[in-house]
Order: sequence, then C-alpha cells, then structure tokens
Amino acid sequence: MSEKTSSVHYINYLALDKVLDAQHPISDKGKGAAHEEMLFIIIHQTYELWFKQILHEIQSAMDLFKADKIDESNIGIIVRRMDRVNKIMTTLVGQLDILETMTSLDFLDFRHHLSPASGFQSHQFRKLEVMLGLKIKKRHQFGGCPYHAQFEGKKKEEILELEENNSLFSLIEKWLERIPFLKMEGFDFISKYEGAVNEMLEKEIAGIKAANLTDEDRALRIRMIEENKKYFERVLSEDEHNKAMEDGETTLSYKATMSALLINLYRDQPILHLPYQFLRSLVELDHKIATWRFRHVQMVEKMLGQKIGTGGSSGQGYLKQTVDKHKLFTDLANISTLMISRSYLPELPKNIKDTLGFNYTK
Amino acid sequence: MSEKTSSVHYINYLALDKVLDAQHPISDKGKGAAHEEMLFIIIHQTYELWFKQILHEIQSAMDLFKADKIDESNIGIIVRRMDRVNKIMTTLVGQLDILETMTSLDFLDFRHHLSPASGFQSHQFRKLEVMLGLKIKKRHQFGGCPYHAQFEGKKKEEILELEENNSLFSLIEKWLERIPFLKMEGFDFISKYEGAVNEMLEKEIAGIKAANLTDEDRALRIRMIEENKKYFERVLSEDEHNKAMEDGETTLSYKATMSALLINLYRDQPILHLPYQFLRSLVELDHKIATWRFRHVQMVEKMLGQKIGTGGSSGQGYLKQTVDKHKLFTDLANISTLMISRSYLPELPKNIKDTLGFNYTK
Amino acid sequence: MSEKTSSVHYINYLALDKVLDAQHPISDKGKGAAHEEMLFIIIHQTYELWFKQILHEIQSAMDLFKADKIDESNIGIIVRRMDRVNKIMTTLVGQLDILETMTSLDFLDFRHHLSPASGFQSHQFRKLEVMLGLKIKKRHQFGGCPYHAQFEGKKKEEILELEENNSLFSLIEKWLERIPFLKMEGFDFISKYEGAVNEMLEKEIAGIKAANLTDEDRALRIRMIEENKKYFERVLSEDEHNKAMEDGETTLSYKATMSALLINLYRDQPILHLPYQFLRSLVELDHKIATWRFRHVQMVEKMLGQKIGTGGSSGQGYLKQTVDKHKLFTDLANISTLMISRSYLPELPKNIKDTLGFNYTK
Amino acid sequence: MSEKTSSVHYINYLALDKVLDAQHPISDKGKGAAHEEMLFIIIHQTYELWFKQILHEIQSAMDLFKADKIDESNIGIIVRRMDRVNKIMTTLVGQLDILETMTSLDFLDFRHHLSPASGFQSHQFRKLEVMLGLKIKKRHQFGGCPYHAQFEGKKKEEILELEENNSLFSLIEKWLERIPFLKMEGFDFISKYEGAVNEMLEKEIAGIKAANLTDEDRALRIRMIEENKKYFERVLSEDEHNKAMEDGETTLSYKATMSALLINLYRDQPILHLPYQFLRSLVELDHKIATWRFRHVQMVEKMLGQKIGTGGSSGQGYLKQTVDKHKLFTDLANISTLMISRSYLPELPKNIKDTLGFNYTK
Repeated sequence: MSEKTSSVHYINYLALDKVLDAQHPISDKGKGAAHEEMLFIIIHQTYELWFKQILHEIQSAMDLFKADKIDESNIGIIVRRMDRVNKIMTTLVGQLDILETMTSLDFLDFRHHLSPASGFQSHQFRKLEVMLGLKIKKRHQFGGCPYHAQFEGKKKEEILELEENNSLFSLIEKWLERIPFLKMEGFDFISKYEGAVNEMLEKEIAGIKAANLTDEDRALRIRMIEENKKYFERVLSEDEHNKAMEDGETTLSYKATMSALLINLYRDQPILHLPYQFLRSLVELDHKIATWRFRHVQMVEKMLGQKIGTGGSSGQGYLKQTVDKHKLFTDLANISTLMISRSYLPELPKNIKDTLGFNYTK
Repeated sequence: MSEKTSSVHYINYLALDKVLDAQHPISDKGKGAAHEEMLFIIIHQTYELWFKQILHEIQSAMDLFKADKIDESNIGIIVRRMDRVNKIMTTLVGQLDILETMTSLDFLDFRHHLSPASGFQSHQFRKLEVMLGLKIKKRHQFGGCPYHAQFEGKKKEEILELEENNSLFSLIEKWLERIPFLKMEGFDFISKYEGAVNEMLEKEIAGIKAANLTDEDRALRIRMIEENKKYFERVLSEDEHNKAMEDGETTLSYKATMSALLINLYRDQPILHLPYQFLRSLVELDHKIATWRFRHVQMVEKMLGQKIGTGGSSGQGYLKQTVDKHKLFTDLANISTLMISRSYLPELPKNIKDTLGFNYTK
Repeated sequence: MSEKTSSVHYINYLALDKVLDAQHPISDKGKGAAHEEMLFIIIHQTYELWFKQILHEIQSAMDLFKADKIDESNIGIIVRRMDRVNKIMTTLVGQLDILETMTSLDFLDFRHHLSPASGFQSHQFRKLEVMLGLKIKKRHQFGGCPYHAQFEGKKKEEILELEENNSLFSLIEKWLERIPFLKMEGFDFISKYEGAVNEMLEKEIAGIKAANLTDEDRALRIRMIEENKKYFERVLSEDEHNKAMEDGETTLSYKATMSALLINLYRDQPILHLPYQFLRSLVELDHKIATWRFRHVQMVEKMLGQKIGTGGSSGQGYLKQTVDKHKLFTDLANISTLMISRSYLPELPKNIKDTLGFNYTK
Repeated sequence: MSEKTSSVHYINYLALDKVLDAQHPISDKGKGAAHEEMLFIIIHQTYELWFKQILHEIQSAMDLFKADKIDESNIGIIVRRMDRVNKIMTTLVGQLDILETMTSLDFLDFRHHLSPASGFQSHQFRKLEVMLGLKIKKRHQFGGCPYHAQFEGKKKEEILELEENNSLFSLIEKWLERIPFLKMEGFDFISKYEGAVNEMLEKEIAGIKAANLTDEDRALRIRMIEENKKYFERVLSEDEHNKAMEDGETTLSYKATMSALLINLYRDQPILHLPYQFLRSLVELDHKIATWRFRHVQMVEKMLGQKIGTGGSSGQGYLKQTVDKHKLFTDLANISTLMISRSYLPELPKNIKDTLGFNYTK
C-alpha cells in the first residue's frame, strides 16, 4: 500500500502532519528545555479535541430537537449520543491522573513562560456551557469582567450569538411541554399523583404513631413528614412554581416539570423508557462536568497550592465556585424528591396503558 | 481435592458460608420483595470490608512510625501501603457507578424499612477519620449531637480512646520534626531558601517592568508579586506560624512544615525520594476521600433529590459540608505554594549532597 | 438513635458483626503474621459478594424470560439489570489493581499456608458460567477431572442440576425465535436482506473496477469481496447453518440468528430499541468476563511468574485457555459481520413501520 | 487580557487553530455526512497525540540511560516518567469505551471511504515498539511484507535506523549488567541464593511427607517440587541460560537476569528501592500495552465481527497474535518464578547492608 496511490492513507486522513506538528514548547527556545511542557501542551490539546467532539454531539442533539415534530426514533439516537458524551467526560476526568504526574516543581520550570495564558480561555468550553444553557446572569463572575471579554472578533461574536439562541435546556423544556400525556382520555396525571402523595403521607404518619418510639423521636419524625407535605404542595402548585421561577430558585417551567415527573414515575411504559434514559443522561452530564471541575480544583491545589493561576486568576477559587453554580439540570435531578414508591403509584387505566405501548402488542 | 482432607479449602479459608449468608433483605419478609435491596446490602458490605482493609494498612503505618528510630527501609514499605490504600479509594469511588444503577424508584421500594439505619453509622469510617487525625472540634456537627453519640458500649469507648491517642497526622508531624536536615554542617536551609525566594521575586518584578504591558496590567502584576512576597514572609516566620496555628488556620507545626518543604524541594536527592512519595500519597489520600464524599453527594442527589436521608439526616447537606471541612493534610498540599523553580533552588554543598546520597556511590 | 430501639441499625442490618469477623489469616497463628494475607482474604470476599449480586441479577433476568409471554416492559428492566452486571464487572476488573499492590515477595510470606485452596474453587463463579450457558463439553479441561469434581454434596448437586436446566443462553435463543417480525404482512426479511447484500457487493465490485489501482491491488480486493459473498451465502442458508451447529462452529439456532440480525439492522424502530440494547449488553458481558480473565492471567504472571498456582494448578495456563474458549455470546458478536450500510438497508413498508411503532404516534 | 498584547494567549500557545482545523470527514463531501466519522477522526488524533507524549518520555529515559555513569537520582526521575507513561496507557485503554459507542451500523456509514487507510499504519506506534526493543524477527508477520513496507521515504528510514540503535531493552540490560552488587566484599549472591533455594525445597518436601495426605496427592506434590528444583537449576546455570537465549526462549542476558533477581529480592534496601520500582514499571507497561491490544481486538470484534479490517487486513487476527507475541519484558516478569519467601532469604552481612544504605544513617 503506497502513499503514492490516490487512496486514503492513515497519516493524511488524520492530518497527522498538522496535528503532530502543533507542539511548540516555549521553554525549548531558551537555555533549558522543560521536559514537562510537552505534557502540558499535549493534554490541553486532547482536551480541546474532545471538547470539539462534545460540541458535535450536543449540536446534533439540538438539531434533532429543533424539528417541529420529533420522530420518536430520534430519542434513541439522542440517548446514544448523550451516552457517548458522558463516556467522553469519564475520560476527561480520568486523564487528570496523567496531568497530576507533573509536580509543582516540574510546572515551575516553564510556568513563567505561559503568563497570562490560562485554561479559562478555552473558547470551546465556554461555547459548551452556553449551548447547554448557562446564562450569563447565572455565571460566577470572574475578575469583574463578563466572561466573553477575553475573546475578540469572530470568537466573541460567536459566543454572544449563542447566548441569544436556543440552548439544549430551552429545547428540552419545550419538548417536555409538548409531551401530551399529562391529560389523557379520562386521566388527569397531576390530580391522581396528588392523591397518591397524600395517601402515602397519611400512612407514614399512622405508621409512626403506632411505632414503639420515644416521644421525642416520634415528634421529630412527624415534623419531618409535615415538612415533606409542604414541599409537595408547594411544588404541585403552579402559582408557587412560577414564583420560585421569578425568584431564581427554579428554572424549568411548571408544565415541563410535571412531564418530567410523569416520565420518571412511569418509565417502565415502553413509550417512556427512552425519554427516561434521556433525562437521566442529562443529570449524569451535569454531575460529570461538576466532577471534572472538582477534580480540576484538586489538581490545581496539588500543583500550585494557594498560588494564583496562570492568567492572573485565582483559578482554584473561581473553579470551586463553578462546581455547583454552573450546574444546569438540577431541576431534573430534583425530580427524585417527588418520587413515590411503586406501591402508591396510581395504576394507569387500560386504555392509557395501551396508548403508551407498542402497536404490535396491543 | 476433597473438602474432607485436613488441607485448606477456598470456601472455608474465606469463611464464605458466613459472608455469603449475611444478606437478609427486610423487604423479603413482607409481600413484595424489593429486587434492589440485595444490591444495597451487598455494596455496603463491600464498603465495610474495604474499610477494614484500609484500617489494617493505616494501623500498620502508624505502628512503624511509632518506633523510636524509624528504619529508612520502612518508608518504602509505608509508601507501598499508602499506594494500596489509594488504589482501594479509587475502587470505592468507582463502584458508586454500580449503586447509581439503582434509581430513586427502586430505592423507594424498600427505603421505608431501613429507617433509621444510615450510612453515617459506619463505625469503621468514623474510626478511620479519627485515626487519620480528624479532631472532634474540626468536625462538621450533625444534628446537634457529637458524632459518637450514635454508638454505644464498646464501640463508643473505642472511638473515644482513639481520639486520645496518636493519630497518623501527629505521628507524621513528629517524624518530620525529627528529620535532621534543616541544619547540617554549614547549611542553614531556611535562610538559604529565604534568600532564593527574594532573588526570584526581584527578578520577576524586573521582568514585569521591562515587559511591553499596559500600565494597568503592569501595576496589577506587581501587586500580585508583592502579595506573594508577604505570603512567603508570613510563612517563614515562626511567630506568625504559631499565631496561625492558634487561630486554627494551620495545623502542622513550624518545624514539620519546614521539613516538608525541604523534602519537596530536594526530592531528587536519593534519601529524600521515598519521603517525598510518602508526603504526596497523603495529599492523594485526602483528595480521594474528598472525591468519594463529593461523588456520594451526587449519588444521594440522584436517588433522593432534596429528600431527607435515612436516619433522619439531610445526608446531602451533611456530606457536602464534610467534603472540604474534613480534609486533614491541606497543610501538606499547601507546600506547593512555597515551591520555587529549580533554577532558583540553592545548590547543595558537596558534603551535604554526599550525606543525602548512598554510601555505595560516595 | 439508640441501638436498643426496635428500629434498624446499620450494623445489624448489614450483619457487620458477621461480615467483619470472617477474616482469619492463617499466618497469624504462627510466628510471623504476614501483613498482606488480610488483603488476600478481603479482596476474595468482595469478589464473592459481587458474584452473589451478579447471580441475583442473572437469575432475575432468567425468571423474566421464563414467562410464557414476555411483557415488553420487562425488556427495559432486564436491560437495566444487565447494565448493572456490566458495571459490577468493570469494578471487578478495576480492583485487580489493588491486588497487584501485593508483590511476589509479599505473597510468598503466606502462600504455603493456603495450599491447596485455589481460586478455581469458587462455587459461585462456576454457577455463573453454567447459568449463562457454558456447557461442560465446551469447557477447557483442567487437570483431567470434570470441573465439578472439586465440589461435594449439596454444592455438587446444585451445579449438576443447573447444567440440566435452562441457561440464559437457551432462554434468549427461545425468545429470539419467538419474536414475530421475520415474516410480516408482505415483508419477508431474509429475502429482502439477501437482495440488499447482493446489490451492495455488486456495487463494491463495480467501484473497484473503476478505481485507479494496480492490477495486483484490484485482484486482491475483488477476491476479498468474493470471499465476503460466500460468507453471506453460507450464513443465510439454513442448511449450512445447521451443519455449522453440528460441527460446533456456531451455537445459536438459525431462526434466532436471523431475529438477532433483524434487531441489529432495524434497531432504530422504537419496538426494537430495547431488544437491541439487550443483545449488545450480552456481548459486553462476554467481553468483560474475558477481560477479567485476561487481567487475572497478568496478575498471576506478576505474582508467580511461571510458578504453579495454589491448588496445584498451573493457574496461568488454565486461565489463558478460558479467556477465549469460555465466551458464550460470540454468535451475537458475529452479527456485526452481517451488517450492511444504512444506504443499502431495505426500507420498511409503511404498515410494518407502524407495527413496530408506538400506538400513540400512529 | 487582550489577544493583541505580546503575551501568550491560550489559543496560540496550544496552536488550536491548527489542531481544531484538522478534522475533515470524507463523508461530508458526498450526499450524506456520516455523523460518527468525526468521532473516528478525533479519537485517532488523541491516540496519536498521546503516542507522541509516550515517545517523548521513553526517549528521555533512554537518554538518561545512555550516560556512561548513571546518576542515582536519575532513577527517581525515570520512575516518575514511566509512571506517567503507564497512566497514559490507562487512559488509552479506557477511552476505547468511547469508540465502542460507535456501532457497526454507524461505522458502515463511512467505512468504505477509508479504504485502505488502516490503524496499522500508525508510524508513531511502530516507532514505539522498536524503541522499546521489539525486533523485526520477533514480530508477527502481517500479509507477507515486512511491517515497514507501508512507510516510505523519511518515515521508512527513521524506522530502519531505530532498528539499528539501542533500544530501551538493550540499555536496561547493560545497566543491569553494570550494577555492581552481585559480588561484594565476601558476599557471592548467586551461591548464597542457590543455597537458600535448596534449603527451601528440602523443607517443603519434608513438610509434604509429614502431612496427612493420600498417597496420590503426596506423590503429585513431590513431583511438583522436583520440577521446581529442575527449573531453578536450569535458570541458575549460565550455560543453560545462554543456550535458552540461542533458542530464543529468553532474551535477557544471564548477568542482567541475576541483577534483576537481586533487586527483586532485596528491594527493601534503600539503594534498591527505586531500581525495583523501575523494573516493575516495565512489566506494568508490557501488560498495559497487551491489555490495549486485547481490548482493541474486542472493539474490532464488536464493530466488524469477522469482517476484514480497513486496509485489507484481518485486523482482528493480526492484533490477536501481537497481544502475547509483542511483549518485551517477559523475562523481567518471570523473575517472580525465582522469588523465595523472606524467611529463606539470605541475611545480608552488616557491611553489605551499610553499603546499600544511606550515608546519613550509617
């Protein structure tokens, strides 16, 4: 197999002459080359390559959601792509172990050359945050400037434009709102669910009253259940929900939240299984990004202690703040708070069950 | 190979009849057995088995440190055991993925049976925290009671006694204080180091002044270096250090801190290499325990949302607090803040270098 | 929360007094306790606990498949449980890293006590192999005795009985045979597929003829495609398939194989998505068990070199043979050989597509 | 921080405009872009970036070994770099999980464009094999041509030249031969060791004779020990060793093998600890590369079944052969066969112990 033939050669196909010629350690130019600078460059390049792949997947999911009517078979495709994104995130977290073989002393051999280049300047990672749905007002401010101030020209415009457009979050919200199962022929999900919750809580209170407990213990537990009750009431009230949205305590609309709850509760119904997997993959992604930030903080701590990061930033402080603050799908994770045991779950009427099943097995 | 012979059979050696007969799901007794309760029991049992192994390793490291004179070859043994503990922690973090295959709905099938059993009642994990050096005053308070209130009789006594004894932290502190390299024949480490730091900072300031920067940028960077300077001065002053200890800002003694710094800076000297690996393994352990807590919080969030944990605890809230607060070796991690580039590192005199080398190669 | 109350305490619920009192290193009895024996015992116990959990999941999947008519919603449940089994396998492979911190020298400190206990005596792992479908005639013989000779009494009977019963493999085969999509109202899958394959191969040959290749290259590639053609013909012929089964080259029946092919090709149809995930999870399990065996061989090599294993076995040799030989779902993996590009895939008629879709979206 | 300043910006420093502009899916040019081709390109690019990093580390280790007299402190540096290489290998194995999210059907969407590009054409991976020490005569032949036939011009010359030069294997062999501990003032390692082995084997035989065993069992075990004895004799004889080298059964010279044995047995002596870590890291690397090949075979099996790989190769078959055959440090792994329990280990005389210790603690 000759390179001369017109057919594709591995090296050309992968543009390796370009990719493998893109490592230019600055320390090489001075007297003593710093052995570890190569690692610093290469690991950042692999991060950026993977970010490109993640953007490719998220963009494709968004495109599929933008369709007026979502083909059910697309949910399967989206689930598989989200699974891929999560597996990439697992690698991104895991490969921090490689970077951590570079110690503080190794880093100091070339760190002064870098100033002020900084990992916070990753344009792709900012894009990812915006595409997922992070709004500028929700961002942790860093050094008194809006985060896009570090970009210029086309790169800045791109970010600003993305801010205006649909995000994955907003597309999912609309999709959840459109799902038509909240009210079906003679089945009003919310009122059925509310009834089940009340039955459950009353039974729990009766159980506690009958149990062999100290007075103190009994009072404590009944108080806990009453707090639970209030929580359920607040969540199920559309007015309260809208108020919470105005106060910035919650982001997902009432209707979308109820649909997400229904999907979680009735996930064993064939038509809801893939939507359930999808919602779960979003919470997973949120957690994996948070874990990546968290481990990143640890890595910086090992490398720099409390020193100020390259780019003049107290990297650690900033990163630490974003671990929780930049999470996007907390409202979906919180659906778990509303779950009730299968034994209380309102049985679906036969006609509804059929509607949620396959034609074939009808 | 017959079970009847006197020789050892795998099943007996591992006491498997005992270990594999220790799973008694409560939900099995009622009408509907909850399929996932088995997983809940088994994963907790594997956690406890691994905790036992970790305690075995930490105890052995403590025993070796308790010796009046530490045999240098023991440091190699301790390094290998710490490496093992860290590999166990990697497994403990990783296997949370298994538990997360149990969803909220699955958990609710048997959760009501458990109350008030709670993961916070792991006696071995409390022991581990205390043995590593976590002091009761540093602990995040949970529900208004001291943490040992949940234990009784012998188990409580054991914890209280451990609180009084040497911890791994205190043993390491003493070992670091005993290391005799801070002042050696004509080499005063601290003053040499101080000189090197000042030289470095002055050169940095000169560099900034010469650079093509905006006035604002230049002022910002010089201010940063001046803050660095103050930081170094504060850390190197024994008085300031003692004050910081009184204020609870730092825990490790001045002398131990200086020894740890020396080990980190001159880790390439043969005699210091294993001590360096050891100090690093402690920071690693701290980070791995923190990561385990962090991922634990995420797992509880997926399972329960904002619901209150078994045992009446807001598990998530408690766990979240301990992620940072229960870290023990932050002072060792912060040594990184004091590192200076090899190009500024004071050259060791020949006689000192020999002292830190091997006999053979002298 | 007192241990005295009637409520459940963590320690009791998990039977920890039993589980944590089941480690009895033999070397402790003699003069020098071998520090690493504890690790050896504990890691084997965690393996056995996880084997119990895997058996629990596989048994539950088999029970669901035994039902005369499989409820479609059960496939979703089975997929989740297989996913759990695979995550457990990931942990079992990963935690070999812990055992590998024990070196040859450490192991020799207590190895002589163990003889002839051997990891090959894991009754649960043998059960797992049999339940998945490993037949005694397919097993790699070890030391001239049937593998169950090492068990006695009830344990031996249990294994022999399992050999007679349905395995997961045989249940899946029946389920695949029952799936009713091979011939549907005017759609004969096999003949449609055969047509598509031929179209594809002809196009490939035309492409090669038109390409700018050396004569040698062209001849080589055409030969490759002709071999492919023969392969497809052989596989699609029921007679040839049955002959291959008799010769032991393939295990899965013709009808089941065709159903598996259909599921793989049309996996994007809603009704086939979960069956597809399920089939894939079986190949995954096969691969993970093989990886575990493979890494096990490496671990033994590190620990013992070419020494003979405990239990008088040349462990390495035996294990090495089983890596490939004990795989069970190779026929499912080989479905990939039969895949054709989506562009050649016969379009499903509208009525069939509806049949494979959801009621709701009809 | 403006891109206009002379200072370094993250994007420029990492040459991201080059790296992120090097993905050109061929399927994009035709009618239907294949979504998964991007993943295929990007993951291969990350593999190549990591190969470059591994080559950087191996080259640096070789350079340090080439020095006439190896500075002891360099072994510590080499150990850290080998540890890094092994962590990279862990990532390379782990990220196969990402590629496996691409299914057979996805791959077929663009596979025909690639022909005959093939992963076997990775120039860097071939270089790595040669630099580690893989000789062309030991290679598994593929398709009847020498492996370097697929390269041309400068790339081919580079490989051929590397074949002629020192490999890591040959450098390590020389280093082991130079280590001066086999004969030290009144301590002849080999004869001491031989005596210890004989004592051990005699004691084992006596133990078996005294044990309560069936005649058959006893005979079996005594036979095993006699085989062990022969094995030891063969290994310790320099003549037999040289014969085994001629027959291609072993590669490492007699003297180097004896030094490696000494290091493994007396690894707790301070001066031998890092050499021991180093030898172990080589076995680790061998195993990790083998695991990567093994998992690679599985991945290809999932993707293509028994289909022929891109590049006209039966990839699976070739890869399968290399898993074991391309291992390089088997002789080091086999040292484990020669280990004897610490209780039989000849005590080092005081003067030797001092020689292997630190000056300071003398």
